[in-house]
Formats: sequence, structure tokens, C-alpha cells
Amino acid sequence: MKSQTPLQVPGFRAVGVRCGIKTSGLDLALIASDTPVSVAGVFTKSSVVGAPVEWCREHVRNGIARGVVVNSGISNVAMGARGRRDAAEMASRAAAAIGASHDEILVASTGVIGEALPMASIRRGIRAAASKLDPTGLASAAEAIRTTDTFAKTALATARVDGRIVTVAGIAKGSGMIEPNMATMLSFLLTDASVAPAQLRRVLKAAVASSFNRLTIDGETSTTDTVLLMASGVAGNRTLRSAQSPGAAAFARAVEQVSVSLARDLARDGEGATKLVTVRVTGAANLAEADRAARRIANSMLVKTAIFGGDSNWGRILQAVGAARVRIQLDRARVQLGGITVFRNGSSTGPAARRRSAARLAADEVELCVELGTGRASAHIWTCDLSYDYVRINAEYTT
Amino acid sequence: MKSQTPLQVPGFRAVGVRCGIKTSGLDLALIASDTPVSVAGVFTKSSVVGAPVEWCREHVRNGIARGVVVNSGISNVAMGARGRRDAAEMASRAAAAIGASHDEILVASTGVIGEALPMASIRRGIRAAASKLDPTGLASAAEAIRTTDTFAKTALATARVDGRIVTVAGIAKGSGMIEPNMATMLSFLLTDASVAPAQLRRVLKAAVASSFNRLTIDGETSTTDTVLLMASGVAGNRTLRSAQSPGAAAFARAVEQVSVSLARDLARDGEGATKLVTVRVTGAANLAEADRAARRIANSMLVKTAIFGGDSNWGRILQAVGAARVRIQLDRARVQLGGITVFRNGSSTGPAARRRSAARLAADEVELCVELGTGRASAHIWTCDLSYDYVRINAEYTT
Repeated sequence: MKSQTPLQVPGFRAVGVRCGIKTSGLDLALIASDTPVSVAGVFTKSSVVGAPVEWCREHVRNGIARGVVVNSGISNVAMGARGRRDAAEMASRAAAAIGASHDEILVASTGVIGEALPMASIRRGIRAAASKLDPTGLASAAEAIRTTDTFAKTALATARVDGRIVTVAGIAKGSGMIEPNMATMLSFLLTDASVAPAQLRRVLKAAVASSFNRLTIDGETSTTDTVLLMASGVAGNRTLRSAQSPGAAAFARAVEQVSVSLARDLARDGEGATKLVTVRVTGAANLAEADRAARRIANSMLVKTAIFGGDSNWGRILQAVGAARVRIQLDRARVQLGGITVFRNGSSTGPAARRRSAARLAADEVELCVELGTGRASAHIWTCDLSYDYVRINAEYTT
Repeated sequence: MKSQTPLQVPGFRAVGVRCGIKTSGLDLALIASDTPVSVAGVFTKSSVVGAPVEWCREHVRNGIARGVVVNSGISNVAMGARGRRDAAEMASRAAAAIGASHDEILVASTGVIGEALPMASIRRGIRAAASKLDPTGLASAAEAIRTTDTFAKTALATARVDGRIVTVAGIAKGSGMIEPNMATMLSFLLTDASVAPAQLRRVLKAAVASSFNRLTIDGETSTTDTVLLMASGVAGNRTLRSAQSPGAAAFARAVEQVSVSLARDLARDGEGATKLVTVRVTGAANLAEADRAARRIANSMLVKTAIFGGDSNWGRILQAVGAARVRIQLDRARVQLGGITVFRNGSSTGPAARRRSAARLAADEVELCVELGTGRASAHIWTCDLSYDYVRINAEYTT
């Protein structure tokens, strides 16, 4: 998905600027459409949500927006009335700066919880950003939404829809507090396809289910997870209104492709991660058990530290399946690590296989496959290993 | 619970010996009663269990036993028919050595998963142990069941039952793969009280619920968790047959006291732990939500690393409550860390309070209290922090 094509989508301008919340680097992003466009959003399922999520949930409902303003460095969470005021002010300042109405601007915020936003800096930042909006500015917006991410995540795909080539571009940030239900993860997807809000919501929901919701870094769910998809319609296709509209499937695939690419990059760049781990469970009695086993393995601190240590420890993988109370037939089960079978038919395949498998764990991408031997259902989850650096990053985050 | 009283219980002899499974140290324990005694057991709820757990479940049913044989260093799990044969052989060798029947001996095994037990060494170890059984040998048995534990866990309590002073003594091992449902945790409790098997089961079940099942180290459940309670009856009280029997409450309290002491020691000595953390949730809408919130906080890698880093990060604690989808009224909620209120009535109590709280986190024992403001239910969980050493221990366990 790393493409030479510039990261831009007709109908949108964007930029990342520095306003001084973080100690260094860009920390305020603005994305704006030239005219009101279709929008859809998916948000955290946490029972504690930040003021920006409350704001977005309310204002994404009518399906029309002009832009998004995002700050990194401090997350606007649990600040009571002040937090709600600050989120609303970010929206109205950005709206004023680009000539939109305050209820057309969505808001997101990520970083340390528990400090008040420095609104004077943010006001200056919004003014500066509005003056620098640029069709090619999405890459700098991707920089500006980073917190502990080690690289900016962007993705791009195209699709033929109703005879037109449409573009889907996305940016995202991780990289801790990430679990199956979307976690401290922000992602903003833009397209020039013409899509009615109701269809945009369906496409986004499906794409999130097979991408961001199949991702876990540390089993945590953030208070601020937000994925937004905006569609400018500049491509000129007949508006997609349902899954039956011409080109609807191709468009949905492009959105999924961008979302999956971003989700995998988020896993790869989990806090302290040294590798992208794909956990695949097959042969489960049903989908729920396949999913539960895959998530439990992916969230197991013992499995994650073993992979970090280059140890093909199938015992810990079976332990995780058992802990999930998922049915497994040990005499029909199989565990593969890095493509090498280390457990089969109820027992180890021996130390030589284990050593070969361990050598494969040195790679940047590792597959961990478990066949349960109890049925035909399967599921996969993306995650990362657990290293000393996860502890360092999170033990020293605010101190 | 660290007492000067010697760790011994009339009617039992025990010993720990070295048979050569681990690279150093004692690695085989034998506990034997002089005559057949009452026994009760509680086992892992994992859907993958080791052969010793299968053996114990079957043989603990009739409520009578003569002893327990335990090896550390290699766990007898997922070894198929060979594993079952090895567990049965450990029982019959120990039975022969002490003059019991093979179905009167319980078996446990803890350590690395995936290697076969070195049965020749274990046979020699069992013979040696049988010849060294001693009324004062329980402390060496506690040594012999250790894996990554940094100290042996023992506890002792007495109670007046029916005019007699009865003793309850216990040993336990942790220290990773431990979660609410009992984890790789072995604990063996002995008493000289006279207790009918049915009542012994009730007392053990209740004690486990308020001790070992309120403990989490890393959210994992082992395949081998086992808690056994044996009662010799040598104290001579009228046999406890129900909760209404004279002294039944005092006896139950003593068993709980020993179990809680061992559980807290297991948390304190979690892999890589630098402190014992007690998570208390109050003001929950109901017991299930109180428990769910407490466990989620206790298992949160972000909370655990923050505590390791001396960071009074109430944001991560609220995030964990939200991730558990537990109802919280932020404007009535309160977070206390080390006795200092850092969040109240919907917002931070300020940086000075946070600094004072952070200073308290340097202690060996830390309390983390969350009032949810939605009801009257409460729950507590014991856990530990997450340090670099957890990663080191588990990334390098078998390599």
C-alpha cells in the first residue's frame, strides 16, 4: 500500500502544524472539504468517552460535514464541562477559519489524559492550519496526529466506480491502548467517490469490522477511538446509495483495503513492538470460539513475550486457548509458528522443529496458526509482540 | 502470617528433594498423611488441562487421600497418552513408597510446557523423598514446588474448634500465568481438624473464592492450577459436617486466612513484580460490575506499567473501567492511589495531589481505589505491577 501516488483526494485539503502541545513535532491537524460532504463515523465502545467523541457522535448523525480538527499531546477526556467547552470551541474556531458552520466540524484529541488543553495554543494552531490547508497536506496531517507512533501511517487505494476512477486515502495513529474495539486509535479516511451518508455508514462499519476491530496491541480500549470517512463526490460517479449501486462493491473493497493496511501498520507499530504478528485460528466449533481464541492468544502477555524472545512456545498458545474456554481436540490440534508445525496430533513435533520455528520468529512479520480440530470456523487477529520498550514507554509516559 | 510457630500439622509428614529436573534446587515434593484422610480439591477452569489435573479430578472425588506428589521444572501438559501414563506412574510410585494405594495419591506438575517428564529422575526422587518424609518437612516442600517464584510461600493459622486448637498450614507457588480463575498456581493446605469431605469441599470452595480467585498476575489461566486441602482429624474435634457444626465457622476462617495470606504473597511475588497492588472498586451498580471493573483495572497493562513507573495515572484507570463497559458517573466518581485522591467530581485534583500520590507508589504495597458513583456494590482484586523483569523472565524462560 506504500505508493508513489501522492496522498491526496480531490475535494479535500489538509495540513499538520505545530501549536506547542507536545514538546516537539506537529501536534494539530486540520482536514477540510471544499463543500459540505457525506460523512460516517465509528467510535469507541468504552463506557467512558472523551468530550470529542460525544461531540462527534452528535454531529456525525446527519451525515454531512466540512472537516475535522485534531490535536495530539493531550487527550480531552474526563475534564467535565470544561472538556465539552473546549471540544465545542475547537469545532467553532475551525469552522470560522474555513467558513463553515460549527456543527459541520468534527473533533478528535489524543495524548495524555488528565491535563486541560492549552486553548490559547490551539486557537493559534487552528488559525495557522487554516491558512496552510493544501490538497497535498494529508501526509503532514498524518504526522500531526501521532503520539507514541514511531512512523506516520498512510494508505491509498483506487477503485473503478461507475466508469470513474475513485481514490480512497487514509491516515491513522496508534499505538498503545489498542484493543479489538478500536482503542486509542484515530483514523481519517477520505474519498472523492459520491456516496450517500447511509451507504457510507454501511461501508465504514464493514471495513472497520474487518480491519481496526481485528487489531489488538495491549487489550485496552481507549476513551477516544474514532474512525471517520468523508466522501466529497468530486469523482462524479452516480451516487452510491446501496450495496446494489454500480461500483458499490469495488468502492467497499477499496475502503477495506485502506483500512486493513492502516490496521496492520498500527499492529506493526504497537508500543515497543518489534514485529507484526498475525494470529489465525482455524477448525473452531463456531465463529465466536474462533474469534475468542484468536483474541485471547493475541492478548496473552505470555505469548507476546515468548514471540519477542524468539521462543516457539506452543504450550503458552494452548494455555491461552484453554483460558478462553474454547473447545479444542488436542489429538487433532496443530500449532504452526512462522510456518513450522511445532505441535500436532497431541504432542510436540520435537526440538529440531521448535528450533527451526524459533529462527523464523526473528522476521518482521510472523504468523501464528492454531487448528483446534473441533469444527470449520476460523478467525484472525493482528497484534504485536511485548518487549521491554512497551514497559519503558508506558512506565515513563508522563514522568 | 509469618509466624515463629513451626510449619507442621499433626498427622502429616512432608519433604522437598532434588531429583534433577530443574538446573538447580529442589524440584520434587511429597506430602503424606499417616492414615487415609479427608481431601477436597479445586482445579483450573481452562478447557486445556494437564494430565495431573485429570488424575486429581478423578481421584479427589471420593474425598479420601493419603498424599500428594509434585514435580517442578516441567509441566505435564499436552503430552497425550504419555502424559497420562506419567501422572499415573508418579501416583503409583509414591503410593508404593509410603504404603498407600495408587488412587489415594494426588499429583501435580508445574514448569515448562512441552517437554516429557524425565521419569527415571522422578522415580529416584520419589524414593528419596519417601525415605526423608518428616513432620517438619513442609517448608522444604514449599521450596520444591517453586518455578519462577523468588521466595517460598507458606502460611499458618490456628482456630479453636470444639474445644481443641486446630492448625491450618499451607504452601503455594506462583508466579506467572496467574489470573482470576486460579492460574499456574499450586497450593496445598493441611489441617489436623476432623472434617467430613463434603464440608471440606464447601470450606475450600469458599476460601478459594475469596483468596486465589481474587488474584491476577497477568490475566492468564494455567492448565494445571490446583488447590488441595487435606484434613487429618488428629486434633480430635467432633467431625465438622456442616456450616452448623460447632467450630465450623472458626475453622473456615482459618482456612480463608491461610489462603488469603498465600494469595497476597503470590501477587507480591508475581513475575517481575516490585509491589503488591490491591484494587478496590466501590459504588458499583452491582457486584458483577464491581468485580469486572476491578479485574479489568488489575489486568490492564497500561495501569500496571504506570504503577511500576510511579505514575498516578488516573486516566488509565478510568479508561480501564470504560473498557470493561462498566457504568460510571464521572461527576460522582473518585480515584485514590496510595491513599491520595487524584480524581474527584469529574476532574483531576491537580498536579500537587498527583505528585503526593506518585510518591506513595514507591511503597511495597499500594492501594488503588475507584468509587464509581453508580450504586453500593464493591469488590477487590490483588495484583502486581508490570516491570521490565516480567518481559525478561517470559521472553527468556526456555531459551
